[in-house]
Amino acid sequence: MPGGHSQTLRPFLWRARRLYPDTEIVSRTREGRTRHTYAEYDDRIARLANALEEYGIERGDRIATFCWNHTRHFETYFGVPSIGAQLHTINPLLPDEHIRYIVDDAADEIVFVDPSLASKLASAADGAEEFADVDFVVMGSTEIDELDATPYEAFIADQSTEYDWPDFDGDQPAGLCYTSGTTGKPKGVEYTQSMLWSHTMASQTPQGIPMEDSDVVMPVVPMFHVNAWGMPFTATAAGAKHVYPGPSPEPADLAALIEEEGVTITAGVPTVWLGLQEYIAAGNDVDLSSLDTVIVGGAAAPRALIEWYDDRGVEVLHAWGMTELSPIGTVSHLTADLRDADYDAQVDKRSKQGLVVPGLEFEVIDEDGEEIPWDGEAFGELRVRGPWVTQEYFARPDASEEGFEDGWLKTGDVVTVDGDGYLQLVDRTKDVIKSGGEWISSVELENAIMAYDGVSEATVIGVPHERWQERPVAFVVAIDGVDRDALVDEIDSGLREEYPKWWVPDAVEFIDEVPKTATGKFSKKDLRERYADQSLVEGSVPEGDAPGQE
Amino acid sequence: MPGGHSQTLRPFLWRARRLYPDTEIVSRTREGRTRHTYAEYDDRIARLANALEEYGIERGDRIATFCWNHTRHFETYFGVPSIGAQLHTINPLLPDEHIRYIVDDAADEIVFVDPSLASKLASAADGAEEFADVDFVVMGSTEIDELDATPYEAFIADQSTEYDWPDFDGDQPAGLCYTSGTTGKPKGVEYTQSMLWSHTMASQTPQGIPMEDSDVVMPVVPMFHVNAWGMPFTATAAGAKHVYPGPSPEPADLAALIEEEGVTITAGVPTVWLGLQEYIAAGNDVDLSSLDTVIVGGAAAPRALIEWYDDRGVEVLHAWGMTELSPIGTVSHLTADLRDADYDAQVDKRSKQGLVVPGLEFEVIDEDGEEIPWDGEAFGELRVRGPWVTQEYFARPDASEEGFEDGWLKTGDVVTVDGDGYLQLVDRTKDVIKSGGEWISSVELENAIMAYDGVSEATVIGVPHERWQERPVAFVVAIDGVDRDALVDEIDSGLREEYPKWWVPDAVEFIDEVPKTATGKFSKKDLRERYADQSLVEGSVPEGDAPGQE
Ligand SMILES: Nc1ncnc2c1ncn2[C@@H]1O[C@H](COP(=O)(O)OP(=O)(O)OP(=O)(O)O)[C@@H](O)[C@H]1O
Ligand SMILES: Nc1ncnc2c1ncn2[C@@H]1O[C@H](COP(=O)(O)OP(=O)(O)OP(=O)(O)O)[C@@H](O)[C@H]1O
Ligand SMILES: [Mg+2]
Ligand SMILES: [Mg+2]
Repeated sequence: MPGGHSQTLRPFLWRARRLYPDTEIVSRTREGRTRHTYAEYDDRIARLANALEEYGIERGDRIATFCWNHTRHFETYFGVPSIGAQLHTINPLLPDEHIRYIVDDAADEIVFVDPSLASKLASAADGAEEFADVDFVVMGSTEIDELDATPYEAFIADQSTEYDWPDFDGDQPAGLCYTSGTTGKPKGVEYTQSMLWSHTMASQTPQGIPMEDSDVVMPVVPMFHVNAWGMPFTATAAGAKHVYPGPSPEPADLAALIEEEGVTITAGVPTVWLGLQEYIAAGNDVDLSSLDTVIVGGAAAPRALIEWYDDRGVEVLHAWGMTELSPIGTVSHLTADLRDADYDAQVDKRSKQGLVVPGLEFEVIDEDGEEIPWDGEAFGELRVRGPWVTQEYFARPDASEEGFEDGWLKTGDVVTVDGDGYLQLVDRTKDVIKSGGEWISSVELENAIMAYDGVSEATVIGVPHERWQERPVAFVVAIDGVDRDALVDEIDSGLREEYPKWWVPDAVEFIDEVPKTATGKFSKKDLRERYADQSLVEGSVPEGDAPGQE
Repeated sequence: MPGGHSQTLRPFLWRARRLYPDTEIVSRTREGRTRHTYAEYDDRIARLANALEEYGIERGDRIATFCWNHTRHFETYFGVPSIGAQLHTINPLLPDEHIRYIVDDAADEIVFVDPSLASKLASAADGAEEFADVDFVVMGSTEIDELDATPYEAFIADQSTEYDWPDFDGDQPAGLCYTSGTTGKPKGVEYTQSMLWSHTMASQTPQGIPMEDSDVVMPVVPMFHVNAWGMPFTATAAGAKHVYPGPSPEPADLAALIEEEGVTITAGVPTVWLGLQEYIAAGNDVDLSSLDTVIVGGAAAPRALIEWYDDRGVEVLHAWGMTELSPIGTVSHLTADLRDADYDAQVDKRSKQGLVVPGLEFEVIDEDGEEIPWDGEAFGELRVRGPWVTQEYFARPDASEEGFEDGWLKTGDVVTVDGDGYLQLVDRTKDVIKSGGEWISSVELENAIMAYDGVSEATVIGVPHERWQERPVAFVVAIDGVDRDALVDEIDSGLREEYPKWWVPDAVEFIDEVPKTATGKFSKKDLRERYADQSLVEGSVPEGDAPGQE
């Protein structure tokens, strides 16, 4: 049959090892930094592969990690898939019952766990049937109290640095990651070798987040979150230097790593970069001169963040992705036409989620099942397909049935597309508020509310309403000492000026904090459960204010 | 089954059409330039797809082209594969019997032919059984005398610009191209959708020949030669402007296109760029300021060529490829370490064939079947594998048997690899001269001889020898009026200084021209056939001069 060799991860590392044997993989630990070269790293993953084989791991078996970002974790990234096994990265911030559920679901053979996360894992595993057949390896040299775990260094100690890497098909499952659980129970997504290969290549295009051998790449986004957005693979394909920020890095840790390791590309959710911004604004002098690009994704990059880093010569590159997409879908590069536009127009574009990466296709479907026009106004649900987009959920026929149609992933994200092709996320299908037959963007309202000085955090949900189906209600975390009544009036009158009357929330409720998911996203499903009581807004919308009646 | 959507070409064009509807595809004709936008182009390929379907073309059918580089030819690049058919590009410079052989071999249904190549095709087709079932479409608006051919514009005229592009597997054959036939009968290589997809992505990495939407891409390498090195696909993935140089472009045509269309990236064999260099050196004023990169491949890029273009602010990027590799294998980018090296050291590296592109693997095997050390000295046969490297020849079990081993393509190229990982081609396995149990690089000798002032062209082959197995003989095309005896002495004594005595050719023969293949390469197999007479060198090597006895 015609065709090329299968698409697998191993050749990326083979190339890095042969061309860049001395390039470093640096890892922050609580005690200092560890340094390995690609040559040493490659020897170590051969030892890991031999150890796994000796343990009895076979093709298709699953191995879990419960770890921060560090070199040993990175060793599992190549060591596990390259023997044909499947690496299942677990988010250690998940509640115990979710951890039990996914370890059981994935039928993990071994869990590799960080010493600093061992007590968390021990609490989830304690007496749990789901963990009955699971062994533990602790990421260090010594045993720990919390768990009966083999130290990683002992596990690989007596193994050979030679390993005869097997050949297999690109369809071989290589990774497994669960979604954040923002809109429901986390759903498993399997990554085949070919999906990870395709994602790596697509990331490496100028339309993605390309890297060179001169780059120093620091993934701050956790390695348990969609493979740190694939950066450990991409950096290896490029032969770049890796920098891993270790357990719970603080802004000061990131600053030190950037300065001292000469980081050129880094990536994480907006809160990380807001944290660094605040740290610097508080008077800490940080040399950002090596830093070219900060990839921001997972949640919308605030405009002010982009501008702040621009002022310091650092480009914020806004990207959108999903667990289901391995994860990169769009990146907000400027098109050639816009490179001469004025700065504000450029930031307008860069604040959007961006342009689709080559190799993917999308369509945006409105409530009537029609494709929306690309006018930056019309919105609908985004659907995506491509070689690195999953076509099903792991062992969840119900979710697969609901989440896919004719080969397209229904992203659950509601977007507009402008005339230049930039996507902008306006909401989630599950969060968008349907009132009087029209859609209200909860995200737009909460961003507007969070712009008020007295507001620390805000979220808006739709609560059921007899007549209008749903009505928006705002939940606000006020800054200490603020006059709450005045704040409510200010918000109410402000929104009335900016938005159609029927968009204005029927109520503003004060809460102590917005509930968050394990990846730090606002958990609206929690709020919705708490406030499922429709009496809250009964009768509060005056007649004649409904959409279509204005 | 887990996995993503299949890897096909169509999404690249979908993206270009949607994001860059107004970006141009420019084509030089003898009468002037044609201009189409991606939107118009996409409409036209939908019409082509409908026309092919109406004609009766089905999935897997083969369609041939016999054309220069122009927009209509580019229309077949997406139009044919995207309906699931297979595009077979024919080199119109091949001898008639080769053309008959490959049209028969491929069982082509239709041949699309340029008006200017119609008489050549007519001569090949005339009375030939192989063409009995073949229809012709001529690339223009009017009928022609040479062949009974439907004009292309009439073929697509009444068709709809809507086409429901089918879904198919990445294994679907999309292209077919024959090797140059330098070392034997041309061998067919089938490109699946996935191979072309992988090659496009790999080309787009910083380690390949990446393009952006601001680029203006002019493939001078013929579209019948491994899909113009994939550039029409890569440029589309990037949303770049395309410039096609049309029938038999002269240096003046290329100069005009570069200047007037603002070409940023172009590509072709060394002779093309030597031609442009000579044209400019002859006093023609050409503005090269738009030009960033000239990709040079197919044969070694001479050092002087690299330096000449450097002096004019144009980067020559040397690449090595093969029909079997779709074609890109290595690109001679400078590694990070070398970016600070002195200019000569940089040009040394850039003159080599370069660094392997991520996603490929290679090994170099010496005569004893061992991998060579990476020391820039040892050489052996290069073997390659990867997602865009074929694993068999089309309908040639004999050639497939010989050309592959354990999944590796035996390239037939003899290379060294230096400590930085740069490959350098020193010969072909079929051309390398085996004398007294050691290898002599014919390429090195001919380059040395071509450096003499009186020499216009030279080639060196091994002729059979009773005692030493083979001995080198040089064939020289002398510049008019040169004193041939003095030249022979000069070469002989010069080579004796530079090389081991046993490398020095036993004879220097003068010929009128070096025989060439259809792609303009030295055809040593022709010379070998002509000079298979070993008496030529009998007794001419003095005792004691053999390798191993020095
Ligand atoms: N740049 C961005 N701007 C706004 N939202 C983003 C951005 N990048 C990602 N997101 C949001 O994150 C989602 C993907 O997150 P992830 O796959 O981690 O799980 P989740 O969708 O939050 O959880 P679940 O699917 O379990 O409900 C996207 O669908 C989108 O809603
Ligand atoms: N940059 C380069 N420098 C030197 N040689 C090159 C370069 N690029 C390609 N080549 C030569 O061209 C070959 C590939 O050419 P192609 O596939 O067109 O057919 P061919 O090998 O010449 O013909 P055949 O395989 O039929 O004998 C390579 O194997 C190599 O020998
Ligand atoms: Mg989701
Ligand atoms: Mg060849």
